[in-house]
Amino acid sequence: MVKKREVIDKSGNKHSFSEGMAGVIATTSEICFINGAEGKLIYRGVPIEDLAEKSTFEETSYFLLYGELPTQKELHEFEKRLKKHRAIPATVLDVMKQMPDDANTMQTLRTVVSLMGLYEPKNDEHSVKETSGEVEKLIAVFPTIVAAIQRLREGKEPVAPDNSLSHAANLIYMVTGEKPDDYAARVLDVCLILHAEHGFNASTFTSRVVISTLTDVYSAVTAAIGSLRGPLHGGANEGVMHLLDEIGDLESVEKVIKNKLETKAKIMGFGHRVYKVLDPRAKILSQYSKRLAEITGKQKYYAMSKKIEEIMKREVGDRGIYPNVDFFSASVYHYLGFSLEIYTPIFAVSRISGWGAHIMEQLRENRLFRPTSVYLGDIDRKYMAISDR
Amino acid sequence: MVKKREVIDKSGNKHSFSEGMAGVIATTSEICFINGAEGKLIYRGVPIEDLAEKSTFEETSYFLLYGELPTQKELHEFEKRLKKHRAIPATVLDVMKQMPDDANTMQTLRTVVSLMGLYEPKNDEHSVKETSGEVEKLIAVFPTIVAAIQRLREGKEPVAPDNSLSHAANLIYMVTGEKPDDYAARVLDVCLILHAEHGFNASTFTSRVVISTLTDVYSAVTAAIGSLRGPLHGGANEGVMHLLDEIGDLESVEKVIKNKLETKAKIMGFGHRVYKVLDPRAKILSQYSKRLAEITGKQKYYAMSKKIEEIMKREVGDRGIYPNVDFFSASVYHYLGFSLEIYTPIFAVSRISGWGAHIMEQLRENRLFRPTSVYLGDIDRKYMAISDR
Repeated sequence: MVKKREVIDKSGNKHSFSEGMAGVIATTSEICFINGAEGKLIYRGVPIEDLAEKSTFEETSYFLLYGELPTQKELHEFEKRLKKHRAIPATVLDVMKQMPDDANTMQTLRTVVSLMGLYEPKNDEHSVKETSGEVEKLIAVFPTIVAAIQRLREGKEPVAPDNSLSHAANLIYMVTGEKPDDYAARVLDVCLILHAEHGFNASTFTSRVVISTLTDVYSAVTAAIGSLRGPLHGGANEGVMHLLDEIGDLESVEKVIKNKLETKAKIMGFGHRVYKVLDPRAKILSQYSKRLAEITGKQKYYAMSKKIEEIMKREVGDRGIYPNVDFFSASVYHYLGFSLEIYTPIFAVSRISGWGAHIMEQLRENRLFRPTSVYLGDIDRKYMAISDR
Repeated sequence: MVKKREVIDKSGNKHSFSEGMAGVIATTSEICFINGAEGKLIYRGVPIEDLAEKSTFEETSYFLLYGELPTQKELHEFEKRLKKHRAIPATVLDVMKQMPDDANTMQTLRTVVSLMGLYEPKNDEHSVKETSGEVEKLIAVFPTIVAAIQRLREGKEPVAPDNSLSHAANLIYMVTGEKPDDYAARVLDVCLILHAEHGFNASTFTSRVVISTLTDVYSAVTAAIGSLRGPLHGGANEGVMHLLDEIGDLESVEKVIKNKLETKAKIMGFGHRVYKVLDPRAKILSQYSKRLAEITGKQKYYAMSKKIEEIMKREVGDRGIYPNVDFFSASVYHYLGFSLEIYTPIFAVSRISGWGAHIMEQLRENRLFRPTSVYLGDIDRKYMAISDR
């Protein structure tokens, strides 16, 4: 199924391997199952559609971390713990204010999370309790960091968290300074549920590789943020927005997309290593994008997205290139009033739950990840003195 | 050769895989070749013994990054560029002074490097020139950061780099405030050469996984630092020093080690995933440790190390458990006057050259690392309403 690459080293030995480790089993997991051929995604046995319809981000996070849907009491306690850790420590916020406003927001998020690790009590034994406590703290504080980054970029004072609001509603509040209506809060809640987990994607795999050295949770999460930043991973939803802005209006869609297809340019938000049919998350997000366009009366971005989807289906649908989760999240975030610069950080606000679940799972039965490589370099070079070179 | 683990998922399908990806080929590389069965290590075709004897860290770094030993002119230019970037930018140093003095030094290093990324001009196209420029800057500044961390821990003012000194000599100078003699500088230079590169170890693999998303160099290096921190990776040389301190004196070695062997406790500095004979780096470092013990007149740590090696050889030598690079670097660093807390950061000062070489190589022919996992969780769980739980 997976195409192997064949190489011959300088001793004449043949080797074959999967490029990008496609199809290579890294380890076992009980967190997430993806059926790319059928477009199915389940978290711990429950279809993503059910969670998107009935759950909340807080409940889904608990489910991912601990493997069971919480009772009312467990959920209440979990939400209480999250609220307790929403605020950024004053010393960290002070340093944030000294960071350059125009830096890449993911780099800033990475730095702030790394900095917070310096204040964390040592957890060198990686006890389950300590580790889950650290993960919960990070889930709690991520929205506050991301909102503060955005406010500081705009030259505004960060907004303190409001514990009367849900995780999602509070994020919108801290970014915009205004409490969102229930529908907007629910849309973001659904976005956070949909992005929370996705198996062995690059950032989650990164977090497991890093924690497998038995380093600290902050090192694993910092690494995952850096990975998520990449345009081949989380950075793609920014790319979709750039595409929409590049196209400019509905009338230009056909021409720009066809031109890109002809020149074999990458079209952001399309295609996925795992899904060969429509990403189930894109399906859900597409509906929310449509509804938000109606509510706000700003049809443009949804209409453009829909048109791109149609053209792509017509032109390359037979090659299994469909919209992925990034494609409709771009217009949804736009309708919710978020700036382009925090699209990927908002992805991180959600994915921290998946990273946390994988870090905890990895530590339960750890084995250092230490693959190998085929050496194709020289084997017998002499060290020549510099005077002879 | 590599033992595979067999698992059966809940649909009854069998899967087999290598735990920890042992023996799994991640990709090809031309940087480093390790023959674990024969105890051979070569950088770009040249045996590590030759480099340790004849090269310098600066030259070896150039060789790792660019694939050819430099001409005199190239080396001179390279050294000039490194010297130009030794200093920590003032804004970053200001923030360092606000960080807690008692934090883990690797976490501090990780944070400072991440912070420096915020000031780096954008390099979103990953041009070879820009990328190698960033890597060179990091090689240049790592010693200064590590020395500043140590000085601030001690409540002292950081020492500015001295451009009349070599990379290694300058590190000792910035840590101790005193210019080292030629022999001490050369010993550290050799240590840096020996630790600079080692194939697809966990931190290097991490750096490649992260950069494969086409994120920035700082994200990849930050991730690698977090990985190197782990006690199953770079953190091990600290563990060796703890072991020596725990034993206390030469007379107690036999008793403590035998007791550890009987209780199957891990003995730090022994055993390696790749080497099944003596690590060639340990062989070289052992000689330096011996010589430093003679010069300083402080025989204790070398004598203890040697005795541990003998007992281990006698008791478990037939199981292929030999000293690794961490084992003798602990006593060598001790003789050079470094505190335990910067042992792993000094490893990073060296390994940044290897990380940089791998990041550059990965970008030349990139493919996103995206392995898979075997899902062993439930497949058909119903979402039960919270009121029914």
